[in-house]
Amino acid sequence: MSKPTTAVIGAGISGLTSSKMLSDYGIPYTTFESSDRIGGNWAFGNPNGHSSAYRSLHIDTSKHRLSFRDYPMPEEYPDFPHHTQIKAYLDGYAEAFGLRENIEFQNGVVHAERLPGGGWEILDQAGDTRRFDLLVVGNGHHWDPRFADFPGEFTGVSIHSHHYIDPKDPLDFTGKRILIVGIGNSAADIAVELSSKSLQNEVTLSTRSSAWIVPKYTYGLPADKYFVTSPHIPLKWQRWMIQKMQFMTGSNPELYGLPKPNHKFFEAHPTQSVELPLRLGSGDITPKGNVSRLDGETVHFEDGTSSDFDVIVYATGYNITFPFFDPEFISAPDNRIDLYKRMFKPGIDDLVFVGFAQATPTLFPFVEAQARLVGAYAAGHYRLPSVAEMERVIAADQQLYTGHVLDRPRHTQQLDYFIYEHDMRTREIPTGRARALAEGAPVLAGRA
Amino acid sequence: MSKPTTAVIGAGISGLTSSKMLSDYGIPYTTFESSDRIGGNWAFGNPNGHSSAYRSLHIDTSKHRLSFRDYPMPEEYPDFPHHTQIKAYLDGYAEAFGLRENIEFQNGVVHAERLPGGGWEILDQAGDTRRFDLLVVGNGHHWDPRFADFPGEFTGVSIHSHHYIDPKDPLDFTGKRILIVGIGNSAADIAVELSSKSLQNEVTLSTRSSAWIVPKYTYGLPADKYFVTSPHIPLKWQRWMIQKMQFMTGSNPELYGLPKPNHKFFEAHPTQSVELPLRLGSGDITPKGNVSRLDGETVHFEDGTSSDFDVIVYATGYNITFPFFDPEFISAPDNRIDLYKRMFKPGIDDLVFVGFAQATPTLFPFVEAQARLVGAYAAGHYRLPSVAEMERVIAADQQLYTGHVLDRPRHTQQLDYFIYEHDMRTREIPTGRARALAEGAPVLAGRA
Repeated sequence: MSKPTTAVIGAGISGLTSSKMLSDYGIPYTTFESSDRIGGNWAFGNPNGHSSAYRSLHIDTSKHRLSFRDYPMPEEYPDFPHHTQIKAYLDGYAEAFGLRENIEFQNGVVHAERLPGGGWEILDQAGDTRRFDLLVVGNGHHWDPRFADFPGEFTGVSIHSHHYIDPKDPLDFTGKRILIVGIGNSAADIAVELSSKSLQNEVTLSTRSSAWIVPKYTYGLPADKYFVTSPHIPLKWQRWMIQKMQFMTGSNPELYGLPKPNHKFFEAHPTQSVELPLRLGSGDITPKGNVSRLDGETVHFEDGTSSDFDVIVYATGYNITFPFFDPEFISAPDNRIDLYKRMFKPGIDDLVFVGFAQATPTLFPFVEAQARLVGAYAAGHYRLPSVAEMERVIAADQQLYTGHVLDRPRHTQQLDYFIYEHDMRTREIPTGRARALAEGAPVLAGRA
Repeated sequence: MSKPTTAVIGAGISGLTSSKMLSDYGIPYTTFESSDRIGGNWAFGNPNGHSSAYRSLHIDTSKHRLSFRDYPMPEEYPDFPHHTQIKAYLDGYAEAFGLRENIEFQNGVVHAERLPGGGWEILDQAGDTRRFDLLVVGNGHHWDPRFADFPGEFTGVSIHSHHYIDPKDPLDFTGKRILIVGIGNSAADIAVELSSKSLQNEVTLSTRSSAWIVPKYTYGLPADKYFVTSPHIPLKWQRWMIQKMQFMTGSNPELYGLPKPNHKFFEAHPTQSVELPLRLGSGDITPKGNVSRLDGETVHFEDGTSSDFDVIVYATGYNITFPFFDPEFISAPDNRIDLYKRMFKPGIDDLVFVGFAQATPTLFPFVEAQARLVGAYAAGHYRLPSVAEMERVIAADQQLYTGHVLDRPRHTQQLDYFIYEHDMRTREIPTGRARALAEGAPVLAGRA
């Protein structure tokens, strides 16, 4: 069987793992990367503007959980590596598997158009038109800032956490009245950093949905060492059990003056911060509920209070955006996009998405699990089920992973890695392989 | 009975509580304060140089434990108040009990000489000679820096934590290679502050004796809420029990690369820091054992490694110093001074020390408990036992509080507040009162 020529968009973790797996199966592929370097989000100060890393960023998952299965993290790394170490690790990964040779740097994909009979015509940054049989999309979902939409107008400085670097960059955060909006890991890290007494700021943290706050260490070991969901026990029971143990974690944000979360413990990704509760309990950060209205330099809150601010930092997450697709072809309004196993759009068999989930505890081994299927699929070792079956499974999976939480952009993408990986390894790939053997794999090669 | 004229040295927490209790009993007293303000250590930037507070300092004890019994902390205070709030609280205390009227500001005691027949001649800062019947010493023990005595010479900058203010003061701590020596609360706080990635320093922490590291919050409540020693169960048993629970606290410094502590859990004051383990586990702080030798800008460690540094910060504690006494009269070499109930030197009945202990969990209610005896004693409601009995009790108390730990300046002063306060309230003061009723109180008035 001849092999499909394949284009991979992006050389971040999704594109790199996909490239590695394609390479394993001997698939001819090209990786398009708009930047002059690999790493995407993990390339601090990435010239393509797609890194949201701040100077102090450390990964929120311990190295043991983070490691790719194919390429362990260096033993000498600390439990929670700094972004510079993650970047070095990814450089090592690209080096070890010879991935650089196939990357076209500073040559991202400007437009991708599906051909009438299948296959892709791609316009690259260099202005060339290129054709490929299969397209793998790994352009990431942590680079296009999403802002909160509050009524009124704020006349101070507004920035998004995407652009936050450190207390001097992109502006001088000293002696300022600062409002941080959001309560994800970025919001927590930035609030903690800017509330350092040495900067003499007044820091307020506002959250609409609130969040459970868990430490990075539990009993002196990285907390995520204890966190493993079992694929053999109903997820509902596991959530119930962990909710019964919640009191032992000190994770209830109400203890520190924050609003009651709009979801139960571990129903959504918790915020990992050991410092945020301490700063709230030390009076260095003032907790607030949702913003109701902006008016000049005044911000009104839903509890009826108001305060004046110099700066608002929106740590309110990111949009899933595919700038290279016509929006009427594929887009993800409110971060909602229905994909089979978060990878395939039913009816389009030569397009694969990698990395579009908020996987718990982390994206790294999750994208690697998806990349394994990319390789198998491109090599003809996997066949998708029928469109009707895919649509049924999409709905069932959505119910499994997010049925218990509120319908918000923050949660639509939620996914449990352990369950997903187990399903991929023990069911999805073997079943798809059986289908391919019985019915034949789709012929992708030669379309473009 | 006529009342002894009393001099109090210092208007920090020891002098203030003593003054309040003297005032309660109607004793004529004068408080000598070298600074222009009250608060001592808690008066950030105190012009008398006796504050060791850095800008970011928050008390390590929760407000519930910290509160004077006579003057509760404001309800609206955060769990762990900032030094500015402690200062405001002490101002409120002084105000509420009218203590300012008796304070002579900017008029410390330069010299105190005991008169042959008892009573005191004092030389004050103004140059005047003053006489008092009773002398209360509350000049504190957190202001005279103690340095580690390493062989060799370091050619970089050496400072003591006493002089550390913030990352810009007293020197610019950015882009520096910094060695912090020590592992008390100051060492932990300063190491955490200076290892913030935004400052781009390389921070190493070196400790000889190591320490157990406990969080400020446990299960979301201030950890010291759980910590109460009972006066009704042998201390040895209580230490054994808490040591059995140690594994639940994640407090073992070896988990984060620090040396094994030279004492068991809760045998000595633990270091309270939720951030230090995280910074060690994130590779932002490099843990090291003891220094073996200094050589130019190179520091050699006992593990055989060495590194170059720009700055050494000695967070190695403080000496107990009485600059107003002739050293041959009273001094505290290696912080060792044998006092009955940490207050009375056997044989000298018109001299009382207040605040000279490393009380667990905190000094505040401890000095208040001592001050109660100061008042009772000055008013003739208390009589000391015989010198022989005092010497026997001093030895027994020393065994009770510190017999289980190494004989080091850091530990000589260790004391359990709950046990001490219970003994004072239920035994020492009533028994002393019974002695006074039976044998008469010492006549202090009219000596000077």
